[in-house]
Amino acid sequence: MGVVIAFDGSGEKPRASLDQLVKLTGADMARVNDLILEKAQSHVELIPELAGHLINSGGKRIRPMMTLAAARMCGYQGMHHLKLAMSVEFMHTATLLHDDVVDESDMRRGKQAARVIWGNQASVLVGDYLLGQAFKMMVEAGSLDCLRILSEAACTIAEGEVLQLSASQDTATTEDSYLKVVGAKTAALFQAAARVGAVIAGRPKNEQEALDSYGRNIGIAFQLVDDALDYSGKQAELGKSVGDDFRERKITLPVVLSFRRGNDKERAFWKRVMEAGEQTADDLPYATKLMERHGALADTIERAKHYGSIACDALAIFPDSEWKEALIEAVAFCISRAH
Amino acid sequence: MGVVIAFDGSGEKPRASLDQLVKLTGADMARVNDLILEKAQSHVELIPELAGHLINSGGKRIRPMMTLAAARMCGYQGMHHLKLAMSVEFMHTATLLHDDVVDESDMRRGKQAARVIWGNQASVLVGDYLLGQAFKMMVEAGSLDCLRILSEAACTIAEGEVLQLSASQDTATTEDSYLKVVGAKTAALFQAAARVGAVIAGRPKNEQEALDSYGRNIGIAFQLVDDALDYSGKQAELGKSVGDDFRERKITLPVVLSFRRGNDKERAFWKRVMEAGEQTADDLPYATKLMERHGALADTIERAKHYGSIACDALAIFPDSEWKEALIEAVAFCISRAH
Repeated sequence: MGVVIAFDGSGEKPRASLDQLVKLTGADMARVNDLILEKAQSHVELIPELAGHLINSGGKRIRPMMTLAAARMCGYQGMHHLKLAMSVEFMHTATLLHDDVVDESDMRRGKQAARVIWGNQASVLVGDYLLGQAFKMMVEAGSLDCLRILSEAACTIAEGEVLQLSASQDTATTEDSYLKVVGAKTAALFQAAARVGAVIAGRPKNEQEALDSYGRNIGIAFQLVDDALDYSGKQAELGKSVGDDFRERKITLPVVLSFRRGNDKERAFWKRVMEAGEQTADDLPYATKLMERHGALADTIERAKHYGSIACDALAIFPDSEWKEALIEAVAFCISRAH
Repeated sequence: MGVVIAFDGSGEKPRASLDQLVKLTGADMARVNDLILEKAQSHVELIPELAGHLINSGGKRIRPMMTLAAARMCGYQGMHHLKLAMSVEFMHTATLLHDDVVDESDMRRGKQAARVIWGNQASVLVGDYLLGQAFKMMVEAGSLDCLRILSEAACTIAEGEVLQLSASQDTATTEDSYLKVVGAKTAALFQAAARVGAVIAGRPKNEQEALDSYGRNIGIAFQLVDDALDYSGKQAELGKSVGDDFRERKITLPVVLSFRRGNDKERAFWKRVMEAGEQTADDLPYATKLMERHGALADTIERAKHYGSIACDALAIFPDSEWKEALIEAVAFCISRAH
């Protein structure tokens, strides 16, 4: 019973859905969700209040599902993967709280950002608290190797965010340097989340690296699709605001491609809105028009497919299983969000 | 050769100095300082630039010295205590960066705060990076027990900061509830810093707890003296600004005591400047006058001495040694900063 992993015409396409992953990890995720609620508690009331606002805002929890599925695909029979999955989600939540402060965002997952309700100060500190809880849980999982991988990811994520801060508003950013940012700020956590599944299962290095590569590449694909969605009508359908990156003057791949493919007049436009930060109401529609003219959104999705393919191929060394199938369908799901 | 640990008239007073601690830990601290510089590096230039600004600003590094001295007093002969000491200092540095953002402080250690030069965004993210590096180093030290203690401290510190945020500007704060804040935001790191010294040395629980108690109580004493100094002329001599806590409307022990000991008119004053936040140029001198009238500063120092005594007594179970003497002199030093 073969699992088809190709995206193109070479065979049956994988379902573009998280359903299988959600179904298989269901029992485990119920326990992880209990852990998440438990560890967001504190005798300091503001902490569960603020953390709960974000935690209950309907994130897909794709990262912890990845840890669980990776561990199970590797034959893991213990319970420590639950703690690692919870740690991964808390690292992600802490990052979101700090990101919203850094980006001065007003919205998150279709709701008011925590910082708008409770202030930047509380968001910074509750983020720190969740990060501390994440490390406590990793310690409870008892694997120094997993601790090493996840603490390295924590550094890399922060590095990526600082890099984005330094590079932001610079229209001269190349695709390569943008990919470095994405690799650090987004892909590093997917990468660590998947890898620790193999590590906790005690699997050999080649399997750890396969899951590392899977996580890294699905993470890049995920971010690139996000970047395209930010300029797309599809985003509005999902109840999210369109053009956040534009207003925050973030140089993402659609901008990098449009700037490079544009003429002098268009480049002057990008410099004005992104570097000088002078934006009027007409600028976002015009930016989107330029992206369409140069195929920047379509090609951002094409690039995402490229990384998605690498992610799927990375899993080839594992024997076919429903877990593997679910992880591959998750890649197709990430890409399909664009349509 | 007895070491005198009493503060009062029962014998010779310990020298109130860090000299002995600095001298004994000198060789180890040179290695820790190298580690600190090395681990503040990153290919993202803004990180060493911002981190270096704070790291090179002349902090006393009393927390890492405590880890080193505790380990050596416990007979530790290895090198992992260096990594723990470095982690402790990075946890502290990360906290300072985030604190300055939370408190909107303009100055830190007599220099412009990093957030003033590089912005709040970079300060939040570089703080996250240093915290990640701290955990990476703890992992390298290889002790899950130390990792547990330090990650719990990270949570407690963040909890204490949130608690202070929730409680701030409330003149009804009791001395007990203020001590809870101090125990969490300041003492928890001293406590963990001292305790891991015994843990890495493989010492039994009673010695771990003795150092835990030493760290906790010197930490409380340290903070209370800091609180008194913030309203004292001595602060100005040290090149630090006076009245920061007042302007930030932080309810510290001198305010708690003055409010409780004051009459209705004085309480109305404290409510206006601390709760309503209406402050004029005359208010800080008047606040200091009220503190003097009610002995609030002197009694804050008395309270600090009380915790200092507990810290010294906690060390009584250890045989006399130059390390123990240095740790006791450090307590006397913390108190003496007030004079």
